[in-house]
Amino acid sequence: MLDIKFEKTKNPKPIPDENNPLAFGTIFTDHMFIMDYETKKGWHNARVTEYAPLTLDPSAMVFHYGQEMFEGLKAYKAEDGKILLFRPDKNIERANNTNKRICIPQIPKEDFLQAIKAVVAADKGWIPTKPGTSLYIRPFVIATDPYLGVRPSDTYKFIIILSPVGPYYPEGLNPVKIWIEDEYVRAVKGGIGEAKTGGNYVASLASQVKAHDAGYSQVLWLDGVERKYIEEVGAMNIFFKIDGTVVTPMLNGSILPGVTRDSCIALCKNWGLPVEERKISIDEIYEAAQKGTLEEVWGTGTAAVISPVGQLRWKDHIMQINDGGIGELSQKLYDTVTGIQLGKIKDSLNWIEEVE
Amino acid sequence: MLDIKFEKTKNPKPIPDENNPLAFGTIFTDHMFIMDYETKKGWHNARVTEYAPLTLDPSAMVFHYGQEMFEGLKAYKAEDGKILLFRPDKNIERANNTNKRICIPQIPKEDFLQAIKAVVAADKGWIPTKPGTSLYIRPFVIATDPYLGVRPSDTYKFIIILSPVGPYYPEGLNPVKIWIEDEYVRAVKGGIGEAKTGGNYVASLASQVKAHDAGYSQVLWLDGVERKYIEEVGAMNIFFKIDGTVVTPMLNGSILPGVTRDSCIALCKNWGLPVEERKISIDEIYEAAQKGTLEEVWGTGTAAVISPVGQLRWKDHIMQINDGGIGELSQKLYDTVTGIQLGKIKDSLNWIEEVE
Repeated sequence: MLDIKFEKTKNPKPIPDENNPLAFGTIFTDHMFIMDYETKKGWHNARVTEYAPLTLDPSAMVFHYGQEMFEGLKAYKAEDGKILLFRPDKNIERANNTNKRICIPQIPKEDFLQAIKAVVAADKGWIPTKPGTSLYIRPFVIATDPYLGVRPSDTYKFIIILSPVGPYYPEGLNPVKIWIEDEYVRAVKGGIGEAKTGGNYVASLASQVKAHDAGYSQVLWLDGVERKYIEEVGAMNIFFKIDGTVVTPMLNGSILPGVTRDSCIALCKNWGLPVEERKISIDEIYEAAQKGTLEEVWGTGTAAVISPVGQLRWKDHIMQINDGGIGELSQKLYDTVTGIQLGKIKDSLNWIEEVE
Repeated sequence: MLDIKFEKTKNPKPIPDENNPLAFGTIFTDHMFIMDYETKKGWHNARVTEYAPLTLDPSAMVFHYGQEMFEGLKAYKAEDGKILLFRPDKNIERANNTNKRICIPQIPKEDFLQAIKAVVAADKGWIPTKPGTSLYIRPFVIATDPYLGVRPSDTYKFIIILSPVGPYYPEGLNPVKIWIEDEYVRAVKGGIGEAKTGGNYVASLASQVKAHDAGYSQVLWLDGVERKYIEEVGAMNIFFKIDGTVVTPMLNGSILPGVTRDSCIALCKNWGLPVEERKISIDEIYEAAQKGTLEEVWGTGTAAVISPVGQLRWKDHIMQINDGGIGELSQKLYDTVTGIQLGKIKDSLNWIEEVE
C-alpha cells in the first residue's frame, strides 16, 4: 500500500466545455501522479501533485537512449455517477512486461492500481459524460540518470497524466482506409515489438506520413522476416472475419498484446463464434477479398475501441470491404465493449474496476 | 550562417583535475548550445547558454514516442594548442539521415558545424590534454509537442552538450570479451537500425545486462531475418582480419554507418590491404577461428576509437583471438586514427576541421 501524498493545486484550470469537441491528448487535468525510483530506495515519494512541467538534466538517459515505457487506458463516468476503469490489471501486467524487456524496475501491481485510482479520484470532476467521451489515462516511466553511457538507468520517474477525450471519430463509428506497408518494418521477433515503448512508435512515423499523404489514416505492418505475415496497425491490433471465422494474428513476440484485442477474442468466443489466433499472410487476405469471403475487417485499441476498416491497400491492389460500410460484428463488438465500459451492460466477465 | 546569441554563465563550475581519471559522460561543461524548431519558423533562437536543466511538459512527445536523434564526436587539443574535430561532416550527414528516417526536420549542415564550433569554443578551457583524453560532443534533437497523438512533432529542440572524457580504457588499449547474442535482435532491415536514435539502444539493454552478468563487456548482434549474419556491437562496428583480408559487414540498412568504421576502411585500403564489405555469417567466423585463420578482431567507434577483441563467445563456443592480445593491425589503426585526431600525424585524407 503506497503512502500517496496529495498536494492539491492552488491554480485549478477551467474544465473544458463538453459541448465543444474534445481533441485527443491535448488537454490535461489539474493533477498528476509521480513516484521516483533509485536503486537503493526502490520506488518512493509517491504523490499526487499539480500537473506541471518536468525538469530534467539535458543528459537524462530518456533523451538519448529511449528507455521509456507507457500505457494507455480510460476512466468512464457511468450514468449512476460511478467511475469505472476497464481491465486496468491487463495494462498493469503489460506495463511490467514492457519494464522487464527494457530493464525498468517492476512496479508492484497493487501500487500501480492505487496510483491510477488516486489521480483519477483527484480529478474526477474532469471526466466527461457525453456519449463517446472518457478520461484518457497515460501512465509512463522515464529513465533519468544524467549519464551518457549506454546501460539501464539507476533512476526513474513513474508518472500518470490524465486527458479528457472525445470520441475518436467525432462523426461516430466510421470505417477507415488502411495502407499495407511493404517497405518499412515496425518490429521483428527478438526485438521490442511487444513492448509499449517509444522505439516502436518512432519507427512507424515515416510510413505513417507516407500513408497519410496517400489518403490513408493508418498503416498495417507486415512481419520483418518474411515480409508477408500480417502484424498490427501500430495504434491497433487487427481482426478479419473470413467466411464466418474470426481470425487475428497470434501473439508472436513482435506485436503488442492489446487489451481490447483480448477482450474482443473473449467476447467472440462467448458468442460461439469460431476464433483463430494464428499466422495470416497478406496473400490469404487478398485471396479472400477476391473470392468475396473477406466479410469484415476491424482494428481494436484503447483510443478508438473498435475501428471498422472499409478499405485495405496493398501495393496496387485496393480491397474494398463490406462496401466500405460498418460490419455487423464490428458494430456489435463496439456496442458491447463500450456498453461494459460505461456500466450499461452487465459485467459478466469481471472487467470493470470501480474508483471509489 | 546562424546568428548565435552567447549568454555566458555567471556560475562557472570547477574544471576537473586531469590527474584524476575522467569517467565517460558524467561531467558536463559550463555551456550548451540550444536551437528551437517550430513548423512556421523553422530552426530559430540559436544560443550558447548556461548548461542547465530542460523544462518540458509531461506530455512532450519525446517521453512517449521516442522521437529523438543523437550523435557523438570529439574535440581534441593538439600540442600546438589548436582545437581539432575529426570528420564532423560525417556525423552531420548521419544526423540528417537519422532525422529523415524519424521525421525530424533537417538541420542545415553549415549551421550544425557552426553550432558545434561555437559551443566548443565557449568551453575550450574544458578540453583535457592528457593522452587519451578529449572533449566528447553530444548533439541531440528531442520532440517537444505536448500531445499524446502519434505523429511527427511540430516542435523540437536541438541541443549540444559537452563532456570531458578520459581514455575509454584507463589502463590503455585492452582486448575485450564479446558475447554473440542469439536470442534478442537489435534491428532489422526496413526498421530504424541505421538511424542513431534511442529505440535501437533501449532494444539492446536486456542483452547487454545478460552479457555483463556472464562477464562479457559487449554484445555482438546477428541479423534479425536469418539470425546468422554479423551486424554490429551496438556502440561499435566490427572488423575481422581473416587470412590477410580485412572484412566487415556491409551497410545493409540495419547497422549504423560508423565514422570510425569508414575511416578504418579508408586507411586499410590506403595501406594496400584487401578490404571486403560484405555479408559475414557467424559460421564463417567460427570456421576461421577453428582453422586458425581468424587473425584479428576489433571494434570501431567514437568512444573507444579501436577496441581489440580478445574473445568471442557464440553459444557454447569460445573463440580465443590472437591469444587474447592486441593485434598488429588493430594497434596500427589505433595509433594512426588517434595520431590524426591529435594532429600528430599528417592529415593527408583531409579529416581534420579546426575550431578557431
